Amino acid sequence: MHGAGNDFVLLPDLDDHLDLTADLAAALCHRQLGIGGDGAIRVGPARPGTDADAFMDYRNADGGLSEMCGNGVRTVAKYLADRQPMDVVTVDTRAGVKRVVIHRGPDGLTETCTVDMGAPVVGEVGRPVVLDDGTTATVTIVSMGNPHAVLLVDDVATAPVTTLGPRIETHPDFPEGTNVEFIAARSDGGVDGRIWERGVGETMASGTGGSAMAVAAHLNGLAARTTDVHLPGGVLRIEWTEETLFVTGPAVEVGKGVLDDAWIATATGGARTSHE
Amino acid sequence: MHGAGNDFVLLPDLDDHLDLTADLAAALCHRQLGIGGDGAIRVGPARPGTDADAFMDYRNADGGLSEMCGNGVRTVAKYLADRQPMDVVTVDTRAGVKRVVIHRGPDGLTETCTVDMGAPVVGEVGRPVVLDDGTTATVTIVSMGNPHAVLLVDDVATAPVTTLGPRIETHPDFPEGTNVEFIAARSDGGVDGRIWERGVGETMASGTGGSAMAVAAHLNGLAARTTDVHLPGGVLRIEWTEETLFVTGPAVEVGKGVLDDAWIATATGGARTSHE
Repeated sequence: MHGAGNDFVLLPDLDDHLDLTADLAAALCHRQLGIGGDGAIRVGPARPGTDADAFMDYRNADGGLSEMCGNGVRTVAKYLADRQPMDVVTVDTRAGVKRVVIHRGPDGLTETCTVDMGAPVVGEVGRPVVLDDGTTATVTIVSMGNPHAVLLVDDVATAPVTTLGPRIETHPDFPEGTNVEFIAARSDGGVDGRIWERGVGETMASGTGGSAMAVAAHLNGLAARTTDVHLPGGVLRIEWTEETLFVTGPAVEVGKGVLDDAWIATATGGARTSHE
Repeated sequence: MHGAGNDFVLLPDLDDHLDLTADLAAALCHRQLGIGGDGAIRVGPARPGTDADAFMDYRNADGGLSEMCGNGVRTVAKYLADRQPMDVVTVDTRAGVKRVVIHRGPDGLTETCTVDMGAPVVGEVGRPVVLDDGTTATVTIVSMGNPHAVLLVDDVATAPVTTLGPRIETHPDFPEGTNVEFIAARSDGGVDGRIWERGVGETMASGTGGSAMAVAAHLNGLAARTTDVHLPGGVLRIEWTEETLFVTGPAVEVGKGVLDDAWIATATGGARTSHE
């Protein structure tokens, strides 16, 4: 499945039989030797103490645990809502229970989902960052639980995402690193954006990145509080209210199937080094 | 499926119902929005006039037709031999019928396959290529139907694959471009290799690339005519006889399943621009 080009291997496990180890996640996510994905998600039963519909047991492609993924939680919600008549899906994550509203298409299946991402924390608007060559980049700082530095450009197609992105990501002003976004206003009131993800590189979409772009766009007078962010992988609608921020975006099922027994044996055979 | 890390989406179609269009192949091979692969292969019935077991209808990830793929033909042979009791599989390709010998593992399933790649055409051994900065790289030229320039290095781990590779690929001495390989002798009689594929970049394996590496290794006194080439994606055994050249390598099935109907409709809906 994917959400705006952020792709995942889902392992339905509502009976709680499966152990999604770091090795298995890394093997599944390998783009040549496995299925390929940005992450692997075991869709397990909600953990004790919550009454959520399911637990999103998420690991990144390197096998490491991750608390939450805005695009991933939409795919979990679609998986459940396409198999049961639900208008709202509650997904337990390591960052708490997320409420997801389902929007169905003409075929009755889930087309988009709305996720409450929590309120952004606005940092500095128009902050100068002095680069190693003496030039200055101007960024807007937004936290969505993770850090974002957003730059305004005239045209995202020609923005220096892969050259300036890593220089800001690792700049001494951001000792823990930062995600870096490049945005430009569109004539239709929306925003075009590209993202350089901390520790990953350029990606097709990011739920927290799209959120930070919309917040920065509004703070800099480029867009209203509700706006469409056009990313390479698809469009995310961002609604920044007084209390919180909602992201509405697509969730797509590519296909479903079963893993080969011999492949599973190799993937879980302990030949790899655990990442944890 | 994959063969030494060269990965493919196979579409079994022995009843000849399916049209593997450029759009569908490109959508299937997209690593975020589709299944992901280096190519898509429709396993169709042999074309009229051949008595092969199947036809390998192969398209590259960009949707373009391709005549033949040494690693791909092994996955087609495994697909067929794991479902019928065959010791030899004949695969019709756009480059003629290929005879593939099946080697089974302890579970009775296909573990490796041997493919007759045809005889290499040896070009110049120890040819100097003068680079734009005035330095000289020394290459051995081998054709396996496609062009290869092979460089000897002390250690492939530190070889300048991603920097020197593209400079040789696009060097004026090779007006149609060339694949570029870096090889080093191993103490066990084998060869370590890495490949810079023309038009693609560094890849985990290549059947023609592994063949060219073994030929160049022998011509330069690094290996016997039969040798194991250790690539990042796996080991290929190359046997260069007086008449031809055989490649033996792994074929792996990762999993099997069905594509989502809505995904197929989008992938084949004509929204994309045809590549042909």
